[in-house]
Amino acid sequence: MSEDSHMHCCNDADDTDLADLRERIAQAVRDVKAQTPLAQSFTNFVTINLVANAQLAAGGTAAMSFLPDDVIDTASISGADYINVGTLLPFYKDALPQIARAFHKTGHKWVLDPVAAGIGKTRTEILCAFRAVPPTIVRGNASEIIALATMWGLISPDEASRPAGVESVDEVDAAVEPARKLATFLAQSAPDGKAAVAVSGKVDLVTDGDQIYRLTGGSALMAKITGAGCSLGGVTATYLAVAEPLVAALAASLLYNRAGEIAEAKAEGPGSFQVHLLDALWNLTPEQVAASDIR
Amino acid sequence: MSEDSHMHCCNDADDTDLADLRERIAQAVRDVKAQTPLAQSFTNFVTINLVANAQLAAGGTAAMSFLPDDVIDTASISGADYINVGTLLPFYKDALPQIARAFHKTGHKWVLDPVAAGIGKTRTEILCAFRAVPPTIVRGNASEIIALATMWGLISPDEASRPAGVESVDEVDAAVEPARKLATFLAQSAPDGKAAVAVSGKVDLVTDGDQIYRLTGGSALMAKITGAGCSLGGVTATYLAVAEPLVAALAASLLYNRAGEIAEAKAEGPGSFQVHLLDALWNLTPEQVAASDIR
Amino acid sequence: MSEDSHMHCCNDADDTDLADLRERIAQAVRDVKAQTPLAQSFTNFVTINLVANAQLAAGGTAAMSFLPDDVIDTASISGADYINVGTLLPFYKDALPQIARAFHKTGHKWVLDPVAAGIGKTRTEILCAFRAVPPTIVRGNASEIIALATMWGLISPDEASRPAGVESVDEVDAAVEPARKLATFLAQSAPDGKAAVAVSGKVDLVTDGDQIYRLTGGSALMAKITGAGCSLGGVTATYLAVAEPLVAALAASLLYNRAGEIAEAKAEGPGSFQVHLLDALWNLTPEQVAASDIR
Repeated sequence: MSEDSHMHCCNDADDTDLADLRERIAQAVRDVKAQTPLAQSFTNFVTINLVANAQLAAGGTAAMSFLPDDVIDTASISGADYINVGTLLPFYKDALPQIARAFHKTGHKWVLDPVAAGIGKTRTEILCAFRAVPPTIVRGNASEIIALATMWGLISPDEASRPAGVESVDEVDAAVEPARKLATFLAQSAPDGKAAVAVSGKVDLVTDGDQIYRLTGGSALMAKITGAGCSLGGVTATYLAVAEPLVAALAASLLYNRAGEIAEAKAEGPGSFQVHLLDALWNLTPEQVAASDIR
Repeated sequence: MSEDSHMHCCNDADDTDLADLRERIAQAVRDVKAQTPLAQSFTNFVTINLVANAQLAAGGTAAMSFLPDDVIDTASISGADYINVGTLLPFYKDALPQIARAFHKTGHKWVLDPVAAGIGKTRTEILCAFRAVPPTIVRGNASEIIALATMWGLISPDEASRPAGVESVDEVDAAVEPARKLATFLAQSAPDGKAAVAVSGKVDLVTDGDQIYRLTGGSALMAKITGAGCSLGGVTATYLAVAEPLVAALAASLLYNRAGEIAEAKAEGPGSFQVHLLDALWNLTPEQVAASDIR
Repeated sequence: MSEDSHMHCCNDADDTDLADLRERIAQAVRDVKAQTPLAQSFTNFVTINLVANAQLAAGGTAAMSFLPDDVIDTASISGADYINVGTLLPFYKDALPQIARAFHKTGHKWVLDPVAAGIGKTRTEILCAFRAVPPTIVRGNASEIIALATMWGLISPDEASRPAGVESVDEVDAAVEPARKLATFLAQSAPDGKAAVAVSGKVDLVTDGDQIYRLTGGSALMAKITGAGCSLGGVTATYLAVAEPLVAALAASLLYNRAGEIAEAKAEGPGSFQVHLLDALWNLTPEQVAASDIR
């Protein structure tokens, strides 16, 4: 059975739809390289440097801010924003909801990375506050997606009680329904009705609430550097500055999987892997990204 | 005179003891690779990325947090914690003692890196507050170890007045008694009576308050990248998640010295040194680490 | 027309003056390698690691602090300080002016990087507060230099209304007068009457308020990693610890341009570019830096 027929089996897109999707993915990658759009980030201190460098390597421009007046001012010139709730500081409890409300008011697009969702009272309060003013895209691992969908009352605690926390194909499968319901909820809040959820794992899953796409490949070394997921979230915001949510989420995840494979082939360990990863993000062409396996 | 007889001279361990110690070091390195234990860090913003990447390269898992509710929640699933008092923010003055008290209450093991001990009123207050709820391991350079032992009243100001601040063999020698007294004090507070102090320098010194071990080798380039010491502290916490304090401190210091030598041989400057260092942390085997020179 | 006569045309220095300037630049590079001076930084969280690593690679020593008591204590042993107003936190609004006042009182030399000048109410308040207690050197891109000179009332809003925000030779040219006026203002506040302003761009511009120097070369990849400018600011502070402002600003900018060219020739993308950049900062000799094209 060919790869093409595999694509038929796993989602309802026919060849024409998929060819069209591939062209829109290629266009997003191309547009970022041509337009160097600014995506602003409010992100954790561990991987903030890699997020900026990955956005630059993908062809975009980066700015990082934490004060609401900075963030809201900069959002007026940024194509999309990225918010990652790692390494919280006390003032974030008020600042993050305030920023999300400002984005919501102006219809500004943003990507949420609900890092460590479920850990810590303050993080839970912040994530719950986002429900009323939700992001355009959520990107996380399966546990985080399930935890967020549960917090927001989109799935029952029963559905949420499945085992989580281990990276595996099964875990991504466990997140299919939570991810789809989350994407549907986000889309209902979006000014243009469009949103997406991306679940990172051994197999990645991307959905707009309707179609489900599974992306294979990548590298196991991704989990041996800090910030692979965070910087993928940042690059998703970079693509969101030029493309619609589903295309942005797919383009970023495909770019990362291809770059991971190239970097792994050249690396002698996690140190050189990160160096080659940034080089590969820079060197991959729109056509290489769009030709990837999508099921 | 053979290397083995050197070992006899410098510490009272006989061949059997040392062989047993080497096996426990190898086992710690092996256990981290097999179990990927989580060690959580509350660390400075300069080197937080390298701390996480070094813990991952050693085989562990990393999480970084600053809010007490985050840190205390995460500590319930982490094998050990790492606290580094660089780049203090105002809220740390209350947060760090609160966190240390929570660790003490549950007997949670942690490594303290008293970076810049002696500089700044706030840092002194925090370090003094830790005396009542002390860590399991302290790792620092000679000046920091001497400063902490003085603050805690473990050595007289006379002993503390020796010249410090220059990295040299002499300086590590100046820290022998402060380190031993500090380790003895920590052990008295530990639930199982076990603790260690590691002094980094041209020659490293590790003690449990009883035996003193001197570790040679490593690379002068370690001082030409930021975070060699901080990330060694983080990796010490990773080993502490699976081993007793003396073994954890020895394993981490030996791993770093061997990785430093490999990286220096391949590096063309401090940029490539850091890349090769992370690769070497990943590639070194338990046997290579345990076969190191220990005196 | 030879390179030498070009130098005549573009600034009034004759051959003897320029030879003397080159010798002072070489001496600054040499002194940093010999004396490993400490330069302390209060800088943004995105590039704080690269700032420290670049200062170390240039031969200096790095310390990063944010609490006023830490910063002011450490300044007593640092040769110069670096303040970068990226990624502001709420407490900076009081802390940064307090620190600048302490530096002013003791005549402590410092470099200001007015990152994102003009964005955010808090940043504007902080930058305005620095007017009364100004730095020794300001380093920024053309837009930032123009914005700061406007905030401080050194140029009229008319002059400030020129197009800015795009990196180009023209933009650096637009900053000539603002930079010269800013440098003159800084010099009037300096205890020894000496100050400098450095404008980074395709062509760099350095002025002490009197002479204007233009530095060519470097690498376009500098804009594809985060922190090239920030770390140049940090290295400027390292040189300021051993040299007068004009020489420090020239030495740092020349070192960066030469290192950028070497790194670009070896790089396969922005990931390897950063690695080679740090190696080149380490390996360049005082003579190589001083022999650079200066117009």
